[in-house]
Amino acid sequence: MQTLKIIKIGGNIIDDEQALDNFLDGFSKIKGPKILVHGGGKLATKLANQMGVEVKMTNGRRITDADTLDIITMVYAGKINKNLVAKLQAKQCNAIGFSGADGNAIISEKRPVKDIDYGFVGDVLKVNTNTLEVLLNNQVTPVFCAITHDENGQLFNTNADTIASELAIGFAKIYQTELYYCFEKNGVLLNVNDDDSVIEHINSENYQTLINDGIIADGMLPKLNNCFHAIKHKVHKVCIGKPEMLFNSNTKHTTIQA
Amino acid sequence: MQTLKIIKIGGNIIDDEQALDNFLDGFSKIKGPKILVHGGGKLATKLANQMGVEVKMTNGRRITDADTLDIITMVYAGKINKNLVAKLQAKQCNAIGFSGADGNAIISEKRPVKDIDYGFVGDVLKVNTNTLEVLLNNQVTPVFCAITHDENGQLFNTNADTIASELAIGFAKIYQTELYYCFEKNGVLLNVNDDDSVIEHINSENYQTLINDGIIADGMLPKLNNCFHAIKHKVHKVCIGKPEMLFNSNTKHTTIQA
Repeated sequence: MQTLKIIKIGGNIIDDEQALDNFLDGFSKIKGPKILVHGGGKLATKLANQMGVEVKMTNGRRITDADTLDIITMVYAGKINKNLVAKLQAKQCNAIGFSGADGNAIISEKRPVKDIDYGFVGDVLKVNTNTLEVLLNNQVTPVFCAITHDENGQLFNTNADTIASELAIGFAKIYQTELYYCFEKNGVLLNVNDDDSVIEHINSENYQTLINDGIIADGMLPKLNNCFHAIKHKVHKVCIGKPEMLFNSNTKHTTIQA
Repeated sequence: MQTLKIIKIGGNIIDDEQALDNFLDGFSKIKGPKILVHGGGKLATKLANQMGVEVKMTNGRRITDADTLDIITMVYAGKINKNLVAKLQAKQCNAIGFSGADGNAIISEKRPVKDIDYGFVGDVLKVNTNTLEVLLNNQVTPVFCAITHDENGQLFNTNADTIASELAIGFAKIYQTELYYCFEKNGVLLNVNDDDSVIEHINSENYQTLINDGIIADGMLPKLNNCFHAIKHKVHKVCIGKPEMLFNSNTKHTTIQA
């Protein structure tokens, strides 16, 4: 099976012009089929402030009302996605921007209301690989923003880490898929203040210990859950670290194992 | 040769929820390869006002500065494009949203500065049909917003009528292309206040007379210039009228002839 690399970048790269340019330089040179998934960075919050749209939180979690969904669609699918595509084209990488609605690629449903109504937040139900596969076979690189749809005309806000893991799982039947989460640290750290304290391998056994010891907490928990979800569903390789892990094999990072 | 229909809709449809739904119903049922091109409507101006971005005009023409380009990218490529794609998917039309940067489809250059510097406005240099053709052959419908790029990472604002005519010209070597400009009138009218006074055929001979008589003026001039540009470059058929002309052969409209 051919290898497909699915690479997710977050706000720390999106918001830093030089870091983004370095990343895109390296990304565009990666050989073979690849998909880029991007988060939103600070631009959505900035636009909400400019427009006077209130950021609504419940129990510390952001609620996506209709105005917020519009902002996310404008910033993620519009400004960020199209600028990434244009920058990749300038580096001879033939990119096409995608939301989950495009090519009916990622179908989701509104997150069920239990204690909290998250509004227009979608949980992924299905990934359609057909149209994407045609593009990958024609040396086109899909660039995904974190928006999905319900096949009934409704767009949804979906976590970018989840988009990346679901794409990796969806493609696992036709490619040997590798999933890379790029962020500002060298990986999962034993000591959050020491970038050299990378835990190089996490498996389902030491994972529970790391949670119990409070090493993996807060925002790392959902990220790691996405990683294990992918590994359990035939994704061949899952890594967390700085973008340099993609371009320099000596760069320390965390690898997730079954 | 197979027929490819390229259909442009403007703000009067985009801004009217019911009219848009009716149009998309009909559009999704059109058999064979097709491309939708959409304008922006009033949403960009509304967002500019909300953000406190000034609309800059010189000699009655809008200037696209960096802030305005951001707004256009957010509204056209983000909100409008992704909602159109999601609505088409709900009607079983497998759409993918495009700017000219996606798939390197439409390359432009900054409009040369003579009397006026239009800012980030791009004049089309080239249409790349390769990736689009792969999608059309796979029953995918591209949906274009009015944004192009220069292959060096810069996005540009480009007139949606021009995008439509350049796509029709670009595809004329591989398809029998038909170009439809949908707007709020039945076509080019002899009397602008009488929707029954449609001029059913315009050719290069009566065109000059219609201009001299002041029948074709203002906004209709660039639209008609796009039409004749297309006809002169092997586009098989060019029509102007209400969207109904696409779905009901009895609907009066204007046909442009060589």
